[in-house]
Amino acid sequence: MMKSLGAKTLIYPAPVLVVGTYDKAGKPNVMTASWGGICCSQPPCVAVSLRKATYSHANILEREAFTVGVPSETHVKETDYFGLVTGRNADKLAAAKLTAVKSTLVDAPYIKEFPLVMECKLVHVTELGLHTQFVGEVIDAKADESIIGNSGAIDIKKLKPLVFTPDTQDYYGIGRYVAKVFSAGKDV
Amino acid sequence: MMKSLGAKTLIYPAPVLVVGTYDKAGKPNVMTASWGGICCSQPPCVAVSLRKATYSHANILEREAFTVGVPSETHVKETDYFGLVTGRNADKLAAAKLTAVKSTLVDAPYIKEFPLVMECKLVHVTELGLHTQFVGEVIDAKADESIIGNSGAIDIKKLKPLVFTPDTQDYYGIGRYVAKVFSAGKDV
Repeated sequence: MMKSLGAKTLIYPAPVLVVGTYDKAGKPNVMTASWGGICCSQPPCVAVSLRKATYSHANILEREAFTVGVPSETHVKETDYFGLVTGRNADKLAAAKLTAVKSTLVDAPYIKEFPLVMECKLVHVTELGLHTQFVGEVIDAKADESIIGNSGAIDIKKLKPLVFTPDTQDYYGIGRYVAKVFSAGKDV
Repeated sequence: MMKSLGAKTLIYPAPVLVVGTYDKAGKPNVMTASWGGICCSQPPCVAVSLRKATYSHANILEREAFTVGVPSETHVKETDYFGLVTGRNADKLAAAKLTAVKSTLVDAPYIKEFPLVMECKLVHVTELGLHTQFVGEVIDAKADESIIGNSGAIDIKKLKPLVFTPDTQDYYGIGRYVAKVFSAGKDV
């Protein structure tokens, strides 16, 4: 029996992303965002939505660039902190004892200790309401060697990304392998 | 040591969504999409990106509406099939022995047997390149009672959504509870 839950955004799983930016003065900032995802294969683009009130929002418009980092479960504490505090008055990276690295490709920093990052050039801005959607073209993706499997591709069981649950606001991990894409459905 | 992987969209986890539409003649169609996510809280909006070549692309523009369903692991075979075949020449729902239900709120169908659906009115269309991004305002979300926990919210361990891995193209499940959002980082 289907039950109405009202007008809610209930996409499962939602990712846990850390957006890296520079402010006008060149101070690196990071914030956690779960409103986002892949949005185009060619050119390769990802989207993140931020509230206008955030410090990162102005930074992206100023620098026309951002990075999207994917933290591991091991950094859940630091990742959650990046969503709790504004970078307007705090140096979040120093507080979390993590290191900002300047991208050589776009005008934005990323976190050295996180295993996966995409360096993005801003290509679209859409005002949707409370959130503004920023679409970035991925200029390069970088991964720590420790999360790359034998095939040369990222191994999700080594990456251990966090899952955000929109309705209960919890973090979960990734579970077991289920099936191969473009294969499991061949005998329907 | 960070290694360059080239310009790739590597957001983890990516969701596995089933987009429901009607064609001009009123035939229901469904297709699987992993390029998407939540993009605004107020008004509540979700985004899905589809290639222009898909049958669903034209359907969304024609009807200015779509639904976003979240399948459980139990329907991985049917879900994968919906991404393998075009609805131009096939009745995918009949082939998969699943039932289309007409939304009473928007001009689009959803799958009766899937545990979670959002009924969306089209509000933005952005041409990004190979993919077009469709932003839909969620008019209502509906969930099967079987996935609602004691708190009245969706229990992700009952929903059992699929995770898509962009680099290896596999389906995974959801793992263990890790931490509470806006809480785990309080002692940084």
